[in-house]
Amino acid sequence: MKNTDSTRRRGRPGHDQDAVLTAAVRLFNTHGYDATSMFDIAESLGITKSTLYHHVSSKEQLLTMAVDRALGALEAAADEATRSGNAATVRLKQLIRDSVLVLADRLEFVTLLLRVHGNTVAEQQALTRRRAFDRTVTDLVKQAQMEGGVRADVDPATAARLLFGMVNSLIGWYRPDRGAPQSIADTVADLAFDGLRTR
Amino acid sequence: MKNTDSTRRRGRPGHDQDAVLTAAVRLFNTHGYDATSMFDIAESLGITKSTLYHHVSSKEQLLTMAVDRALGALEAAADEATRSGNAATVRLKQLIRDSVLVLADRLEFVTLLLRVHGNTVAEQQALTRRRAFDRTVTDLVKQAQMEGGVRADVDPATAARLLFGMVNSLIGWYRPDRGAPQSIADTVADLAFDGLRTR
Repeated sequence: MKNTDSTRRRGRPGHDQDAVLTAAVRLFNTHGYDATSMFDIAESLGITKSTLYHHVSSKEQLLTMAVDRALGALEAAADEATRSGNAATVRLKQLIRDSVLVLADRLEFVTLLLRVHGNTVAEQQALTRRRAFDRTVTDLVKQAQMEGGVRADVDPATAARLLFGMVNSLIGWYRPDRGAPQSIADTVADLAFDGLRTR
Repeated sequence: MKNTDSTRRRGRPGHDQDAVLTAAVRLFNTHGYDATSMFDIAESLGITKSTLYHHVSSKEQLLTMAVDRALGALEAAADEATRSGNAATVRLKQLIRDSVLVLADRLEFVTLLLRVHGNTVAEQQALTRRRAFDRTVTDLVKQAQMEGGVRADVDPATAARLLFGMVNSLIGWYRPDRGAPQSIADTVADLAFDGLRTR
């Protein structure tokens, strides 16, 4: 269905940009970022390509906005952990739990983030920002090791990668009927700190 | 560079099919399976599309072969664990360790497997086979819980997904300079069973 009411649409840029972003991310995740054109996005919304360009300037802008939805929330969780003033071990566990909640809430955006390849400038910027977040997690593992809460025999960067391997796996399997986000968040944080073994 | 020596090529189908498969998987992983055409694969090998069709019948066949390289090795690891006759808890830890070794060895093939969407019949078959492997892991977690080696307060399917979240994360970060496969395999199995906490 074509939208001919472009005056109304242009009057609500926030609302429309959200709808455009959601449709774009869905296509990027299904067919790949490279394989999706601005025409495909317009078509899936039932609008013309020229109407689409009233809302966003480029496919790259859509990628950057989508990545910001994912990383912005993860960075906010890391900042909150830092501001809490708790011990690093407590902050690390909190960050794992909060990251699971972000993923459950913004699954499609994080899915896109984790599939970014770096073929274009917008993708490279996303990768750079993602690596900065990874370094924050690695630093937190290091601090937790120094205060004695986390075992010192594991390389902190490897530990950070494996922890977020568990967290990020949600993009492949999480659905609301597989558990409340808070319950999954507790399970991930528990397994990360105490493992599977019966004690 | 075009290859004009098609007689020699056709004389070594195994060798050539390997080169075709490797090139195809690289393109699938970089640009997406949907976005890659048989022409792209031929071009990256410096051969004509018609020469490419001497080696493989379709893009779908390449996907099926690539998935088999990944899942065949993982299924073999699961079979070996079963045949060992060890307790389920020991078998589960062994399967985690062996799966890490498979990933380090066949990173590009597993990367492709984990990105399969299910848009085509070949992709749907890959997903079905992958789900069967996931069920094997879930069953092993259940058995380990029943024999008392693994904590019973975690849903076995969730535990299996999180364990393989750690294992599968290797596709995003593993490089030989980040640790010998055997050492990474030990770290993953240790964290999975004992967690990060200092004891």
